Amino acid sequence: MSAALATFDEVLAAAARIAPHAHTTPVLRSRAIDAMAGCNLAFKAEHLQRAGAFKFRGACNAVWRLTDAEAARGVATHSSGNHGAALALAAATRGIACHVVVPRGAVASKLAAIAGYGAVLHRCEPGIAAREAACAAVVETTGASLVHPYADAAVIAGQGTATLELLATAGPLDALVVPVGGGGLAAGTALALAAIAPDCRLYLAEPAGAAETRDSLARGERVTDFTPDTICDGLRGTLGQPGFDTLRAHGAEVLVVDDADTVAAMRLLWQRMKQVVEPSSAITLAAVLGNPGRFAGLRVGVVLSGGNVDLDALPWAA
Amino acid sequence: MSAALATFDEVLAAAARIAPHAHTTPVLRSRAIDAMAGCNLAFKAEHLQRAGAFKFRGACNAVWRLTDAEAARGVATHSSGNHGAALALAAATRGIACHVVVPRGAVASKLAAIAGYGAVLHRCEPGIAAREAACAAVVETTGASLVHPYADAAVIAGQGTATLELLATAGPLDALVVPVGGGGLAAGTALALAAIAPDCRLYLAEPAGAAETRDSLARGERVTDFTPDTICDGLRGTLGQPGFDTLRAHGAEVLVVDDADTVAAMRLLWQRMKQVVEPSSAITLAAVLGNPGRFAGLRVGVVLSGGNVDLDALPWAA
Repeated sequence: MSAALATFDEVLAAAARIAPHAHTTPVLRSRAIDAMAGCNLAFKAEHLQRAGAFKFRGACNAVWRLTDAEAARGVATHSSGNHGAALALAAATRGIACHVVVPRGAVASKLAAIAGYGAVLHRCEPGIAAREAACAAVVETTGASLVHPYADAAVIAGQGTATLELLATAGPLDALVVPVGGGGLAAGTALALAAIAPDCRLYLAEPAGAAETRDSLARGERVTDFTPDTICDGLRGTLGQPGFDTLRAHGAEVLVVDDADTVAAMRLLWQRMKQVVEPSSAITLAAVLGNPGRFAGLRVGVVLSGGNVDLDALPWAA
Repeated sequence: MSAALATFDEVLAAAARIAPHAHTTPVLRSRAIDAMAGCNLAFKAEHLQRAGAFKFRGACNAVWRLTDAEAARGVATHSSGNHGAALALAAATRGIACHVVVPRGAVASKLAAIAGYGAVLHRCEPGIAAREAACAAVVETTGASLVHPYADAAVIAGQGTATLELLATAGPLDALVVPVGGGGLAAGTALALAAIAPDCRLYLAEPAGAAETRDSLARGERVTDFTPDTICDGLRGTLGQPGFDTLRAHGAEVLVVDDADTVAAMRLLWQRMKQVVEPSSAITLAAVLGNPGRFAGLRVGVVLSGGNVDLDALPWAA
């Protein structure tokens, strides 16, 4: 399904498809943080999604839209992060095989989570070329369907379902802030907003050390030659072609955030909201706090994208 | 109000009195933790209560049951922990003065929270005798009403309201586990269960390093000569007389928990449920996990009592 761009109809179809499996996550609010931000914040708590991140939405949609014959051959991906765990759990909900290609040197606790959901791990050398080659080999051997972490229309459509729920629960919003890495969540969000809340402005929070989405949208072509340097481990990927095309079509403004501000926002969410969120989530609040003029007095949605963090290596202890 | 024992009617009155000010906190569930515990757990999320702990319920009830004339003279207490912050915020909801006696050497971040809610801090020497003397002097000078952290019928009645909400949301429970320190929450819970869920067994989770409630209930008289040694900073107090009398009347079983098991449970709640809870909360889950035979297959309520933790000194880093 990765060739065509996703559509809003596919977001709606995804919502129906994943409903029996995914959590309808709550929308959280905090008077204290509203007072600091000078606006009215609605936090979509995707860190409380199954497998601890919004990634389960897209993975679940990709798994359940397969025909029975396709599903019988399983699914495959290359990701040692949230998408790998999400796809493993999504495959488990359908009782099919999941192959996850992981580079040597990946964090052991993350691999344990993926294996814990029943996936088969395939080791490869580090680097995107080695990962893609190893994944292609697995697909060739097994006949599994490749589910790319973000450059996939079914995944993008699935990620868009979070926005449907947020708007249904929080009511009208003036602005919505989501993190951007490979662009799956950003593109799905753009599709949903264009269809049901066209007056809601979309902002993409991007780490200063991996701000190629800003550059890509500014230049009108994808920037791919960069080396990410950011604490936001979920946002180190390169904006994919489907995400790029969708964001160009619908429009979105990138807000670049320094890691220090992301860490401060993460601490604030832990301390005041009592929520364990990862840096790639907290960057959205940091983007709001760092741009008070833009959001003053508005109703602002913020997607807390995930909560999978290494409790033994908290960033403020570094 | 501290002389008489609280009644269930006072719990009901407290619920109505605090409704405009306190949060109705959510009930959280986790399939992963249910699977580990072998039972069906309903977590009452009092760490999401205002000021970050259930203590706001009792403090709020105590503040709002004062006559206008009493209220005009303010309230006072001695507590550098969650009750101090809760009373300060409760006083702020009524626009009255709050005096908090704090010992020299108390944690600066906790004092800042109390002062942040607008309370006046009064320093005293460490030790319960010095604290009580300093508090009595403040009451004498100002005419403020003393609101004891737990040996107070209005406070106990307020704490009981959490159980009303839990049962209303979670439905029938076979068992309910709450932490016990001074006994305010335990006594309020016992009153509520006796009236509306008499078949639900009450368990009190108590740290091994401060297990004087177990000893007091076993001996039939309050044990007061002990030196607490536990990471559960909210549970170092001595069971008060009203708590003792109420627990003796209604019955409750104490489950003693080692700090190491509390820390493991706290980590589990952070990692799997993504909730920032303090050790004094996590001890309830530790009590369930440590007594699988007692809870197997049951519907078990667990009160997550607070989430005020020093993010710079996490217990597993020690």
